[in-house]
Amino acid sequence: MTPLETVNEFMARFCVPDLDSACELVTSDVEYDNVPMGKNFGPDGIKAFAAGMSAFDSVEFIVHREAATGQIVLNERTDRFVKGDLTFDLLVAGVFEVNDDGLITLWRDYFDMGKVNEMFAALAD
Amino acid sequence: MTPLETVNEFMARFCVPDLDSACELVTSDVEYDNVPMGKNFGPDGIKAFAAGMSAFDSVEFIVHREAATGQIVLNERTDRFVKGDLTFDLLVAGVFEVNDDGLITLWRDYFDMGKVNEMFAALAD
Repeated sequence: MTPLETVNEFMARFCVPDLDSACELVTSDVEYDNVPMGKNFGPDGIKAFAAGMSAFDSVEFIVHREAATGQIVLNERTDRFVKGDLTFDLLVAGVFEVNDDGLITLWRDYFDMGKVNEMFAALAD
Repeated sequence: MTPLETVNEFMARFCVPDLDSACELVTSDVEYDNVPMGKNFGPDGIKAFAAGMSAFDSVEFIVHREAATGQIVLNERTDRFVKGDLTFDLLVAGVFEVNDDGLITLWRDYFDMGKVNEMFAALAD
């Protein structure tokens, strides 16, 4: 797989969710950085963060634009979280690095924390 | 210039600031979208938004990662705003589209509005 294909395959597995399969595509020390929330490291860090998403019926990453140069992949997405009748669309830009072995070493997402807080508040209602 | 070179030249001119020269590289209907703040359109929209940056002694866009595929350019940056002894580093991911004439049609920045509000509050102190 190319770095771009690796990133898209990883995101597809992440959203199923099939986290064990997704984490076959990352290094043991992968950095997973949700910029306004903080960093997690390694497959266990990804799985711990993803556990918080189990509150949703479905998670979908819709890619609008993507570009890859060398080992760098960036994309622009709508991350759609669905819970019953509630649908939350989070606008995200993602940054990834893929090493020479085809494994993701960095996944960093940029978004507005205010929108995430709105989502949490709506869920708590 | 390639689309990547166009984007980097545009950002360099924007930061001088030399807005007239920067806007020679955008279309008349360019979309300039600061995701948590809203959209501006056209060179006048860019200039109006940039006027708010005149409060700073300097603005610098430091590119950490960038990728370009076709007409799409994305980058990961630290946008550094300096005012006297205050330095604000805003973590940003940018999305650009460049048309076949080599002009930017879209500039969209993703960042956390909370950090921008902290910057405004510190300036007001």
